[in-house]
Amino acid sequence: MPKKFAVPTKTSLILYGRHAVIAALNNSERKIIKLLCTAENAPEAKKICTGRGLPETTVNIVDRKEIDRILPREAVHQGFALYCAELPGYSLEDVCILAEKQADCHLLILDQVTDPQNIGAIIRSCVAFDTLALIMQDKNSPAETGAMDKAAAGTIEHLPICRVTNLSRAIENLKKAGFWIVGMDGYAKTTIDKMNKRGKIALVMGSEGKGMRRLVEENCDETVRLPISEHVESLNVSTAAAIALYEIGKK
Amino acid sequence: MPKKFAVPTKTSLILYGRHAVIAALNNSERKIIKLLCTAENAPEAKKICTGRGLPETTVNIVDRKEIDRILPREAVHQGFALYCAELPGYSLEDVCILAEKQADCHLLILDQVTDPQNIGAIIRSCVAFDTLALIMQDKNSPAETGAMDKAAAGTIEHLPICRVTNLSRAIENLKKAGFWIVGMDGYAKTTIDKMNKRGKIALVMGSEGKGMRRLVEENCDETVRLPISEHVESLNVSTAAAIALYEIGKK
Repeated sequence: MPKKFAVPTKTSLILYGRHAVIAALNNSERKIIKLLCTAENAPEAKKICTGRGLPETTVNIVDRKEIDRILPREAVHQGFALYCAELPGYSLEDVCILAEKQADCHLLILDQVTDPQNIGAIIRSCVAFDTLALIMQDKNSPAETGAMDKAAAGTIEHLPICRVTNLSRAIENLKKAGFWIVGMDGYAKTTIDKMNKRGKIALVMGSEGKGMRRLVEENCDETVRLPISEHVESLNVSTAAAIALYEIGKK
Repeated sequence: MPKKFAVPTKTSLILYGRHAVIAALNNSERKIIKLLCTAENAPEAKKICTGRGLPETTVNIVDRKEIDRILPREAVHQGFALYCAELPGYSLEDVCILAEKQADCHLLILDQVTDPQNIGAIIRSCVAFDTLALIMQDKNSPAETGAMDKAAAGTIEHLPICRVTNLSRAIENLKKAGFWIVGMDGYAKTTIDKMNKRGKIALVMGSEGKGMRRLVEENCDETVRLPISEHVESLNVSTAAAIALYEIGKK
């Protein structure tokens, strides 16, 4: 993937859980620092590390309790904890270069969605439905965390993620690059299955409850909603995103 | 809703969180024992309880810390904790009576899905997309819990839930009642958007990773899958259920 304007990573983090760790080890773009794993997980991990040319000292066999100690309570780690660097971010220019080659494509913009687990689940749906990239505001979205990557179940390694300073300006630039901006809004007249899904589409979703901010919504070319029962006020943002991406990805 | 063969409830539980508790108070089918709430939540709760003819002693104003003490760590209760009875269950006969009147309808059968939060999220999607009822195996599915109802965000009050002893036998009976049994299977040839959505449909989903048990799968009339990218092994069961119910509910 081209990343002429890649944003350098500053911080390291600890990933955990089989899917997240194995996918990270397999991703040559992911800078690996050190793996802690239980004895039964070591052969699989060593094979991947050797294949990538990482030094033998990368894989460290430890007791399950030692992994428990370095992770948050409740973290289901399955005997894997990986010290690594954050994935390099994509700039908006990178995303537009990716989009240039495609007649039909879609990307997702999140406005004020802050829960790492929701974002992880959304990343998994993005990859499942061939979303080109995920765009978030730098200030109001969490950095990559172990909990986010656990919820993404390894899929974060396959999704370009772009953090921008100003979401409204990013939307303006996406319009110039040929994107049609579609906001999700529970009060919209059109349901999402009725919209035109051809061309380059940027789907915008706000936080559960509050929705998009006014300035962001005013920048949308069109708003659509999910057809849900009156007994349900709204869906969880990651559930709504999954359905919307499925519908848009279908063509 | 008719419940000729309603299954009596045996146990009480503690619900928490604004949506779950307010919806339970508003549901005349829900037997209320005692509400603990913070002072700022009391007027809203008292109004609902008075409207239902519940005694004044139902609403008890307490300190937030007192609610913290009776709930699991990490429970986001928003100043509401409700002691109440489990909702009465539906029998399979009840469900078939509900279906009799409808030409087009769908229900969801879960095989071995055990995580209460996933089940709560699935309940929310069922209500969002007008699912007739949710059917689970009695032995291998959790009882109603506060965590489940929190994830359902109050929607459990609107969904008939039926627990059966033998899932394969229940499927046989649903076939006799005119249901077409559709299993979700990642290896199916047909994608879910291509299936015939008319008539009475019972959608069957297994647990994430393991899928349906063999005996259950053999009882299906048809299997379908979600059209997902090769980079994603599977979706979270509640995400997959949401998309499937959206697609089937669309008609």
